[in-house]
This record gives sequence, C-alpha cells and structure tokens, in this order.
Amino acid sequence: MNQQIGTGSLRFAETPFIIGSASVVGTKEGEGPLAEEFDCIGETDKFGQSTWEAAESSLQKEALTLALGKSGKNSEDMRYLFAGDLLGQLIASSFGLKTFQIPLFGLFGACSTCGEALALSAMTVAAGYGDYVAAVTSSHFASAEKQFRFPLEYANQRPVSATWTVTGAGAFILAGKMQKDKEKPLAKITGITTGKIVDYGIKDSMNMGAAMAPAACELIAQNLKDFGRQPSDYDRIITGDLGEVGQKILFDLLGEKGYDIRNVHEDCGMLIYDRKTQGVGSGGSGCGCAATTLSAHFLPKLASGQLKRILFVPTGALLSTVSFNEGETIPAIAHGVVLESCG
Amino acid sequence: MNQQIGTGSLRFAETPFIIGSASVVGTKEGEGPLAEEFDCIGETDKFGQSTWEAAESSLQKEALTLALGKSGKNSEDMRYLFAGDLLGQLIASSFGLKTFQIPLFGLFGACSTCGEALALSAMTVAAGYGDYVAAVTSSHFASAEKQFRFPLEYANQRPVSATWTVTGAGAFILAGKMQKDKEKPLAKITGITTGKIVDYGIKDSMNMGAAMAPAACELIAQNLKDFGRQPSDYDRIITGDLGEVGQKILFDLLGEKGYDIRNVHEDCGMLIYDRKTQGVGSGGSGCGCAATTLSAHFLPKLASGQLKRILFVPTGALLSTVSFNEGETIPAIAHGVVLESCG
Repeated sequence: MNQQIGTGSLRFAETPFIIGSASVVGTKEGEGPLAEEFDCIGETDKFGQSTWEAAESSLQKEALTLALGKSGKNSEDMRYLFAGDLLGQLIASSFGLKTFQIPLFGLFGACSTCGEALALSAMTVAAGYGDYVAAVTSSHFASAEKQFRFPLEYANQRPVSATWTVTGAGAFILAGKMQKDKEKPLAKITGITTGKIVDYGIKDSMNMGAAMAPAACELIAQNLKDFGRQPSDYDRIITGDLGEVGQKILFDLLGEKGYDIRNVHEDCGMLIYDRKTQGVGSGGSGCGCAATTLSAHFLPKLASGQLKRILFVPTGALLSTVSFNEGETIPAIAHGVVLESCG
Repeated sequence: MNQQIGTGSLRFAETPFIIGSASVVGTKEGEGPLAEEFDCIGETDKFGQSTWEAAESSLQKEALTLALGKSGKNSEDMRYLFAGDLLGQLIASSFGLKTFQIPLFGLFGACSTCGEALALSAMTVAAGYGDYVAAVTSSHFASAEKQFRFPLEYANQRPVSATWTVTGAGAFILAGKMQKDKEKPLAKITGITTGKIVDYGIKDSMNMGAAMAPAACELIAQNLKDFGRQPSDYDRIITGDLGEVGQKILFDLLGEKGYDIRNVHEDCGMLIYDRKTQGVGSGGSGCGCAATTLSAHFLPKLASGQLKRILFVPTGALLSTVSFNEGETIPAIAHGVVLESCG
C-alpha cells in the first residue's frame, strides 16, 4: 500500500520510475558550466519563432519530443501530461503541447511547477491510473522579463539579489512498472512531500531567493520529519532557484530548526550559470532552471549510481505583477520529490 | 482495482464521495434564477476588500470555510488542496487560501479548472493518498475584465456572443471512504474523462463559446465511447459556460458524431443568469460559474436522488491577452467528471 506519512508526504509502495528525460536550453545556459550535459542548446533564443512566447512553446515541444524519443515511447503511450510554465494562463504549455494530443492537467506552482508535475505524475502512475505519463515545464528569460519585470528593450538595471530566468524546458517520462530487459530506469521516485504556502511578508520582487527560502526550509524540515531522516540520509538536497542570497537564508532558517544541510545542499540556480562571469546576479531561476538541471545534471548521476538518494525541492514565488503593484507580499511554495538510484 | 478505460478515462473501483460543498457569489448572481440556492451572496462585489483581486481571494476563503463547516471538517483534516482561478499566476487562490495551511496543488485549466480540480481530488482520495481533500475554484467579473478585456471604467461595449464572468467561488470536500452514521455524501464520483487541447482556429475572444464547444464535443464523445454509454444514460450532461452560442455549436458538432444530447444538456452559464433581463450576452462564464452551479444547483439534486447520474463538463479557453494580442488562436480544453447519486 502507498502510505500517507506525516502531514503532507507520501511513500510509494510500488515506486514509479523515470524512464527518460530531456533538457533543451537557450544560448546563455549553453555557455554555462552545465553546457555539455544538456540535450539541446538553441542557436538563438528565438528557436525559430517570431515571439518569445512561441519560442518558449518550442522549448516545451522539443523537450517532450526528445524525452519521448529517448524513452522509446510515442505520445500515444502517454496516459496523461502534467505541464506548466510561468506565463499568465500557461500559454507556453498550451501552445507548445497542443499537437501531442495527450490528456492534459495544467499546473501552476511558479518555479516549483517541475516538482508539482513530478509529484502528481508519480501519484498517477503509482496508483495505476496510467502506465506512462509525462511531465513538462519551462521558462524563458525574455518572456518572463516581459511578463514580470520590463521588456528587454527597456534595459533596466538589476540588483545583485535578482536572479536570471533560465531559458529552458525539461521533460520527464514516468512509468508505473518497468518492462525488464526493454526499459532501463534513470531513477525511481520513492516519495513526495507537498508544500503549503509560506508567506514571511517579503515584498521585494528583485529578491525572490529571500521570499522562497522560508518555503524551502519548511518543506525540507517537513520531509525530514515525515520520513524520519536526517540531512545526511540524502546524498543531495537540491533546491530549484534560491540563488546565493536565498541559500544563505535557507541555511540560517534550517539551522534554527536544528538541521545543518550545508554538506549536502546544491541549488540548481547556482549550478546552471557561472555567477562570476555570466552577470546573472544571485543565480538562475524559473521552472526551466530546476527542470533542466535535474534532467541534465542529476538524473544521470542517479542512473549511474554516483548518487543514491536525493531530495529535489523546487520553490516558487506566487506573485504576479498585479499582486506586486497592489502592494501584496510574495507568498511562496515548495514541492519535494525523493528520487533514488535503481542501481 | 481502479480501471483505465479508453484513452483518457478512469473508472473508480472504490468511488470517492463529495461530503460537502459551498458556493459564494456576487450581487448579480444573487439577483439571478439560482439566487435562493447559493450559500452566500455578497452585499457588494468587493467583499470588504480594497481590490478586485483581494475580493476574489475572499470568495475562495469563504467558500472553503463554508464547505469545511458543512462537512464537519477542519482544514487540518484536509490532506491536499487542489485550487485555481483565471488570474495570471493564480493570485486569487494563493492569497485566498494561504492561511488554511493545507498542502497545495495549484491548477490552471481556465474555466475548466473546477473539473480538473475535482478529477485530481477524486484520483487522490481513490488511491488512498488522503482521507479528505478539498477542491476550490473561483472567478470574479471585475478581476477577469481587468485581466482579459478592459477595466470596468472604460465601459466597453460587448457583442451578444460575449459571456459574463461569474463572480463566485465553489468549494468541495472529498472523502475516500464514508464514516457511516457520521457523514452523509452529496454524491459519489464514479469516473473521470480528462480532456486534450482542442484548437479549431477560433480567434474571437468575444466568442468563447465557439472556441470551447469543440473541446466539450470531443470530451463528451470520448466519455460516451470510453464508458460505452449513450447520452440517455445520463440524466444530465452539464457544460460549464458555453452559453447560448456555444450550446448551438455543441449540438451541431455532436450531431455530426451521431450523438443527440439536446434532451439532457444544460449549461451552467445559461442557468446562472436570466439572459432576457440581466444583460449578460450569451450567458455566464468563468471558473466560478460551473463551480457554484454544481454546488448550489446540481449536487442537492444528486443528494436527494432527483438526479441519478450526471456528466459534468466544464470547459476552458486557454488564451491570455499576450497570446491574443500576438494573433494566436484560442485553444480550449474540457474536463469531465461523472457524478452519481448515493441514494
């Protein structure tokens, strides 16, 4: 039996598997430290399209196509598709994925959406609701700047606490059971911890790391408590896009709860760019940041057995320009997924 | 065992129950034909708040509070919360629901979100992932006009094909098993059919019914095929907000597939307002339209046994002002939920 544990966690009896994944990124990510690990780097950030939104849709389409191909599956094999992005009304997903004709659940958890999609995908296949499902999320620097901050042409200045939205999409194919000899899993999902909204009253949209760190802290502490684990029980605890500023806050907040995760913590936003030379402020961010880094950097290490067990915790800042302009705070959320090596 | 049927449907072996629901609406809905059926009608559409977005958040908060109370449950009893709205980055849900501190899955399916939330809620409790979960969706006329069309102060004119966004929120409490003698179900959810994106190339954002009718048609036909049913096997097939214009198109499209649903079809958008006197064009629309009408009008009829089995099919138009202004089409999606009387 699948098991409810604690107040927001699940332990899967028959663990779902990730049987394939893919990452497609833009030019800046293609010049960063993970360049050689991504499946596909665009020649330009327009990806052959005439608008930034259509470019982001192309990212999703290419990532899912690649992930299906790498898994040896077709879109008809996918029972459900869990997808989302940062844009209002999820237009990157709707326009990017409509031709696949897979029953769709649209999701929004800001930059935590990759974790939300993996959690619901895992729940779906573990319950036998589908043999295969797909999870796809994306972000694009230019469509996000237009959506949340200023059009690129405005050339606004950015404080060092600001993060740089990743141009990228990650796609994951999950299976409930493995066909032995035919399929080789990258990793299994042994549990999830679903986050509550955390709001410490931060209002600075140029400092998302500070807004999201409390959500990451609550989620990680909840996961450790629910599963009866210590930080050292994980080879890595990986946040999505806290950046350098958010990481410091996370360490302090978890320290107050008696947890020291400094030896096992990595942040996708700090891995994806070279902060010294690429001018990205505190680090990378966006749904695409955690999704592409998980696919390109961490899943291969789980597949090879170099990592045995990780806690993947993308975080999201639940603001819009409307809520920001109305003087509201920035509530945040995190979604935790426990991934283990099958080796 | 829960059963995958057809290409997007599930039949639940142990059916989840709706044990409570609530509807909170605005002034115009409170002057319409369903006035006496709603749980709560606001004295003004601001609901004591200073912005339309905060008013919509209040709708969600009040609807969930009422639904919990009517079910005899607390927020701590809820394992998960599935919620969404029409606003960019789901700010009505994030700000309305953050104080409940329930692990949250944020959803976006435009006006179909109520169906998406009920489907995922049902899947969750039927799999034993939670004993109780909640599903909440909302829309608000003024926040939606500001988001999608024009600020109210602009006083733009509207064609007759346009629909009127409902100010309202509906909340539903689902349980995996009934505690006999203690709880009385309103209805059980025996199956779901999850929609794919359907895009017939419609570009007129003042005629959402035409954009969404093809998605409703595909979903209804898929449901009938997957479950091996005829329209007469349902006491009602209920769409969310096609309106008068969309209903005609739906009848024509289903007719081409050999199905005549005219005897059993109702549309929440046509029920919630008096189109002759209330000046709402083709009818009501929005996540709140289907959610409040299901809660106030149809669930009591299932609870009393007056209706035995209904197919609830809210539809969503997956556009944003950005996609519209860039000349894109209006893709649509529908989510189907089969509800049956427990009597």
